[in-house]
Amino acid sequence: MAIHPIPTIIKVDLKKPYHEQPGLHTRWHPEIPFYCKVKPGEVFKVECFDSSGGQVFNTDDADDIKNVNPMGIHCLSGPIEVEGAEPGDLLVMEIQDVQPFPDEPWGYTAIMDPAKSSAFLGDIYPNIQKAIWDFNGIFASSRHIPHVKFPGFIHPGIVGTLPSYEMMNIWKERESKLVEFHASINTPHTVAALPNPEGAYAGQAVSPELAKKIAEEGVRTVPPREHGGNIDIKNLSRGAKAYLPVYVKGAGFSVGDIHFSEGDGEISFCGAIEMHGIITLKLGLIKNGMKDLSIYNPVFLPGPVEAHYGPSRYLTFQGISVDESGKQHFLDVKVAFRQAVLNAIEYLKKFGYSGEQAYLLLSAAPVETRISSIVDIPNSCVSYSIPADIFDFDIMPKEGGPTPQGDMSSTVFPTSK
Amino acid sequence: MAIHPIPTIIKVDLKKPYHEQPGLHTRWHPEIPFYCKVKPGEVFKVECFDSSGGQVFNTDDADDIKNVNPMGIHCLSGPIEVEGAEPGDLLVMEIQDVQPFPDEPWGYTAIMDPAKSSAFLGDIYPNIQKAIWDFNGIFASSRHIPHVKFPGFIHPGIVGTLPSYEMMNIWKERESKLVEFHASINTPHTVAALPNPEGAYAGQAVSPELAKKIAEEGVRTVPPREHGGNIDIKNLSRGAKAYLPVYVKGAGFSVGDIHFSEGDGEISFCGAIEMHGIITLKLGLIKNGMKDLSIYNPVFLPGPVEAHYGPSRYLTFQGISVDESGKQHFLDVKVAFRQAVLNAIEYLKKFGYSGEQAYLLLSAAPVETRISSIVDIPNSCVSYSIPADIFDFDIMPKEGGPTPQGDMSSTVFPTSK
Amino acid sequence: MAIHPIPTIIKVDLKKPYHEQPGLHTRWHPEIPFYCKVKPGEVFKVECFDSSGGQVFNTDDADDIKNVNPMGIHCLSGPIEVEGAEPGDLLVMEIQDVQPFPDEPWGYTAIMDPAKSSAFLGDIYPNIQKAIWDFNGIFASSRHIPHVKFPGFIHPGIVGTLPSYEMMNIWKERESKLVEFHASINTPHTVAALPNPEGAYAGQAVSPELAKKIAEEGVRTVPPREHGGNIDIKNLSRGAKAYLPVYVKGAGFSVGDIHFSEGDGEISFCGAIEMHGIITLKLGLIKNGMKDLSIYNPVFLPGPVEAHYGPSRYLTFQGISVDESGKQHFLDVKVAFRQAVLNAIEYLKKFGYSGEQAYLLLSAAPVETRISSIVDIPNSCVSYSIPADIFDFDIMPKEGGPTPQGDMSSTVFPTSK
Amino acid sequence: MAIHPIPTIIKVDLKKPYHEQPGLHTRWHPEIPFYCKVKPGEVFKVECFDSSGGQVFNTDDADDIKNVNPMGIHCLSGPIEVEGAEPGDLLVMEIQDVQPFPDEPWGYTAIMDPAKSSAFLGDIYPNIQKAIWDFNGIFASSRHIPHVKFPGFIHPGIVGTLPSYEMMNIWKERESKLVEFHASINTPHTVAALPNPEGAYAGQAVSPELAKKIAEEGVRTVPPREHGGNIDIKNLSRGAKAYLPVYVKGAGFSVGDIHFSEGDGEISFCGAIEMHGIITLKLGLIKNGMKDLSIYNPVFLPGPVEAHYGPSRYLTFQGISVDESGKQHFLDVKVAFRQAVLNAIEYLKKFGYSGEQAYLLLSAAPVETRISSIVDIPNSCVSYSIPADIFDFDIMPKEGGPTPQGDMSSTVFPTSK
Repeated sequence: MAIHPIPTIIKVDLKKPYHEQPGLHTRWHPEIPFYCKVKPGEVFKVECFDSSGGQVFNTDDADDIKNVNPMGIHCLSGPIEVEGAEPGDLLVMEIQDVQPFPDEPWGYTAIMDPAKSSAFLGDIYPNIQKAIWDFNGIFASSRHIPHVKFPGFIHPGIVGTLPSYEMMNIWKERESKLVEFHASINTPHTVAALPNPEGAYAGQAVSPELAKKIAEEGVRTVPPREHGGNIDIKNLSRGAKAYLPVYVKGAGFSVGDIHFSEGDGEISFCGAIEMHGIITLKLGLIKNGMKDLSIYNPVFLPGPVEAHYGPSRYLTFQGISVDESGKQHFLDVKVAFRQAVLNAIEYLKKFGYSGEQAYLLLSAAPVETRISSIVDIPNSCVSYSIPADIFDFDIMPKEGGPTPQGDMSSTVFPTSK
Repeated sequence: MAIHPIPTIIKVDLKKPYHEQPGLHTRWHPEIPFYCKVKPGEVFKVECFDSSGGQVFNTDDADDIKNVNPMGIHCLSGPIEVEGAEPGDLLVMEIQDVQPFPDEPWGYTAIMDPAKSSAFLGDIYPNIQKAIWDFNGIFASSRHIPHVKFPGFIHPGIVGTLPSYEMMNIWKERESKLVEFHASINTPHTVAALPNPEGAYAGQAVSPELAKKIAEEGVRTVPPREHGGNIDIKNLSRGAKAYLPVYVKGAGFSVGDIHFSEGDGEISFCGAIEMHGIITLKLGLIKNGMKDLSIYNPVFLPGPVEAHYGPSRYLTFQGISVDESGKQHFLDVKVAFRQAVLNAIEYLKKFGYSGEQAYLLLSAAPVETRISSIVDIPNSCVSYSIPADIFDFDIMPKEGGPTPQGDMSSTVFPTSK
Repeated sequence: MAIHPIPTIIKVDLKKPYHEQPGLHTRWHPEIPFYCKVKPGEVFKVECFDSSGGQVFNTDDADDIKNVNPMGIHCLSGPIEVEGAEPGDLLVMEIQDVQPFPDEPWGYTAIMDPAKSSAFLGDIYPNIQKAIWDFNGIFASSRHIPHVKFPGFIHPGIVGTLPSYEMMNIWKERESKLVEFHASINTPHTVAALPNPEGAYAGQAVSPELAKKIAEEGVRTVPPREHGGNIDIKNLSRGAKAYLPVYVKGAGFSVGDIHFSEGDGEISFCGAIEMHGIITLKLGLIKNGMKDLSIYNPVFLPGPVEAHYGPSRYLTFQGISVDESGKQHFLDVKVAFRQAVLNAIEYLKKFGYSGEQAYLLLSAAPVETRISSIVDIPNSCVSYSIPADIFDFDIMPKEGGPTPQGDMSSTVFPTSK
Repeated sequence: MAIHPIPTIIKVDLKKPYHEQPGLHTRWHPEIPFYCKVKPGEVFKVECFDSSGGQVFNTDDADDIKNVNPMGIHCLSGPIEVEGAEPGDLLVMEIQDVQPFPDEPWGYTAIMDPAKSSAFLGDIYPNIQKAIWDFNGIFASSRHIPHVKFPGFIHPGIVGTLPSYEMMNIWKERESKLVEFHASINTPHTVAALPNPEGAYAGQAVSPELAKKIAEEGVRTVPPREHGGNIDIKNLSRGAKAYLPVYVKGAGFSVGDIHFSEGDGEISFCGAIEMHGIITLKLGLIKNGMKDLSIYNPVFLPGPVEAHYGPSRYLTFQGISVDESGKQHFLDVKVAFRQAVLNAIEYLKKFGYSGEQAYLLLSAAPVETRISSIVDIPNSCVSYSIPADIFDFDIMPKEGGPTPQGDMSSTVFPTSK
């Protein structure tokens, strides 16, 4: 009995627009037709476009980032029917491997137009910029952010099951209320991406009626939700398992938004190292697991293989809930996190990096972000840990201050008007 | 040349009230007199009361927790003058060891009166309760929370330098404004602890005028701030280094609030395993380091010795910014963290723990809390990882649900009226 | 400036006999012509046959193992000329990645005919057997050794530079003397593989004179030597660097014998998970490094990405220098190691594995072998650590003894006579 | 119910000769009277002399090493009776903690007189020397070997149960035969330490008859054997468990030879950081475990807390079975290990260390020694890994060679004639 190569059940053609290919979709909706079917325990591969669906290129300008259509994000591969899955079960997803396409050993991290994104430091670093990362085997390095090299915690940013109508409607209702509330207080930025037919795509929905229904009703893919979705957890890498709620018969599993690496928080929004890739998966079931195990949100186990630098090699910055204007906030973790990031960026700038380089680097490299305290009123304390060994110079604090490095290159900008 | 035993430069008498002993203080103020002096590079020991200053005991009721005077918290050892330290320097603190007193191998975790605390789940678990932990060498276990045993990341919750008047006044002003704002919107809970002479103590301030001045002006020790303070970072354990800003001549270093172990967040407020203990320290200086290194908030390096369970042994729960009523919040990390904790508690209850036991366990055990995404509007995603190997039963998700354990004991309550 | 895919500088055709392809060789000799050339710092890929050069197949019998021609082992890819390399330099080899061919996700571990091999337990387990391993992404599992699954420390067993005549002659002389000595004492087994033209191959040696010279003079590839060679170090995996002496102008780097995984010692001889594969490499130089750094034997640095199970998850067996007949040896590490392995096999048999299954499993899985003491006369102490988490059942010692598992399958045998 | 401090069941007076104190012994014999008794599951402390029984001091000469009486080694604390233990059971020993005495924060590593020891490099480094290590909390550093600092894997070198007469006689017989054989071939060095009444001591054997019997019959403590004994496994540190065979009713557990740190192999014989110390233990039983689990030699599980430096921070040297004269040996692991050590020493000497400093450093620091291959005839391959982060300078290989450090101090010598 010879074992055959692992089958690829969803193939994509990176040279063709994603919206001309089946097996891809850009919204979550109960009626997106299954593209293919697997049995529990089978191992298979799925090819994925990058999150933008092929709108970004390995170039030395950021015109592509400037022109990106955010409505086409994210381009997901699926849905896959799982034999025997029923509402109430848990889908046990096991990531056997994630790899770039052999001919596409590169990825990108970018600052998008603030009007199209929700970057963590969008107010401080609003200008469109891009850094390309080259993959040399397990390592990423960048001609736009020199002096760093690191192995990625390669992972899919998005894994999820199809929602039921009930679940989808809960999502739509609560997000609509948020949008309404913020409109009432004139919040200047977008607070949630509501359904919008523009850019909606559901490959197998070949009937125009169904395509229209999905485009109009389908929820957007931006946030993580109860079914998984855009969880962006860097530790969901090779060897990890996730337990995902099942809401529809057949589960309808989809995957995409592959990242070669990501810093906790994925702070620049287009912030991981975004890439096209191939994921090897196994899906199983725990029958009736939601109720039996009281699991209504994804639970996961990281894999046994991760980069390890030793705890004492993590230079750790700290932030508290006082913003950069000096204003005190009440146990606001987001403010504390922001301060920790800003403290780290100021430190890295002393070595010669631009603010944007440091920002994109921290967004993409395997940086750890912990909520260290949440009860010490009025400040929460976030710690933000950078592995020193990803740099080819010594970043440890020293008497006399840092040694600025020589040629520091630069992130790249749009050239078109 | 024989080396002599490491000197203990601050000794405490656990049997005597802390406020009758020198070398201790409960407020931060520029004029707290130095208790002793060290040279950079010397190694020395400091004895510390638990954070309550000896108000809690190794008993099977929670009367002590009920009666605790929060104004006497935290009881710190210091301040220590560092020879040659000047404003603008960085104090390099190295933790050589932290140990319990040989005759006091125990600690506690508690739910305090909500009126006296700011617990993370105070609304859900408002009743005063306590769990005692017994230390068997590097391990903690509890007669009130059975079936767990773990080595602690033993650490001081508080390390800090004396503020200058300028720094102290910035703190007071921003915290006052916060209190005023919340008063104006009728926030029902305390949002910050402002100066309050009740319980104020500064051991060496023997002149009544100075004692009064410190009591009235001194800032409270509850929050972490730019000088360090109550940072509650569990990874600042044996072997860790911290770089702390220096604001006054001599630095004035103090330490206290020792924890045998703590889960990221220290969620129940009195939430780590609080203990009396002895810390071995070395202090050094980076002259002019604040400006040279652009370090205005603590930076630290964990030590090389930590408990390691393997990444795949961390069962990881997830929370998003939708609260338990179903309301959508905008990228609120605190809400996401809260949901992750609640998800974990519901899971652990399936094995037979009470909610309070699970809550105190997660507060005290080496649980990891990561901010996994902060840009995926409207949800941030917090991951919350529990090491499976601290339990003496298997906590992994299984078909058919958890196996409830037998005798689960109970946390303890106040007996007095 | 777009980056192009990483070039493959040596390609092999797995369907064609290795000895009809250039870029391959089975002996070490100074005059093997370089197949291709790289500049220091370039990243490139090299394809490799398995160590047998394609003599073993993914089947359920061991006829292939029975019939294997050991003279054709190992089939190496190279030699590669490194621009600027001169004798006395150190070649800095960096492994960027190692992967199976996409269509060949399998490998094998075997017990070879004792007449053709030098297995560690050849006297106890002399019968030819084979186990096939299937690769599901980063994991290996086997239909012939059930209930285990593990990620490999994937690595090349052989990396080396071409010897000079001087170096080669030293090797030949010392090994000949060993063979002579053992012949004089009638040692019954082979103690070293001396030059032998049978199976010798050097792809680019197209002139019959040169081919003959290499076949007759070239040293065999079995042992590790000063230039590297068959070092079989499992930690020389993805991300590792090795520093190898350079003896000839151009260095002449070759690589092969890829292992998906290996237990320290590779005890069954054909003992790792042998596979065809593709390695991504970068070569650099430290000019005059041998003398400057006093490095005359390979030095290496493992990569940052390894499987981690937590130290307390390694069940560790021990062996001392007393053999199974009860005879005391003097600080003999090999005897101690053998006892540790035998102790582990006896333990695993209690769960239902056959001795051969346990033997092949320990040979192939990421087992750690430490020399714990070497001075406690007359016993050395070797510790032998098995990660518990590679099993799908609990292997920890328990009252009442192990729980035998159900269907344990079997390793496979030759069917032909 | 208050928990009382952990009881110390064996106390020693470091100022008094060990052979005037009960609870100590220097031989293994079935009839050594139990000193005290514990119940399975109890936690208790045991105080221990250093291995020499107090013959070595914190001084800057090596007169003590010169004068040491090797017959008094090792001074063990015990034996402890375990309630309910019977022959055939497994004793489950759990190390809760190991600490130096608070007033004795120091230890030593030494080269002893070759006539009294069996050091691994005794022929190359025969001169008596000593290095003192100072303990600053979890860290050791030395005024005699500067520029290094590391946390120890603190552990007892010896843990064991009392042998039965049957077991003891097997040991005596096989070791006698070894001595006889080596006498017949005129081996110039000692190959085993046979029973010898000189220096024999068994504290509770108050009757002169019994004392004499034990002194004459008792086996020496130098080697590890089936019951444990001098296993010198550095990973048997805080939190570790060992499963030891029980041969006599009550088990008779003893412990001693505490090491603050040790490199795998403990190469200089008196080679770990030897210290007086206090160990906290818990003993349990697996009834009939020897047969049920097929465990006839110690099995152990390391603890979860170890120093971690990241795999890529271990500079790894390699040795093969060719000795320094160029002679080829057959798969001799000891020769390969020796070459790896010599290669490492030559490398470290380039930074300015003397050979003796490097030798003692590698003997004492947490160095890892793996048997990487054992089947690649005629060479085995041993890898020898030094954590780079224990040095305060950069030890990585660099173009131009190492940077010699400044003042390198020196190990110390005997001053007396």
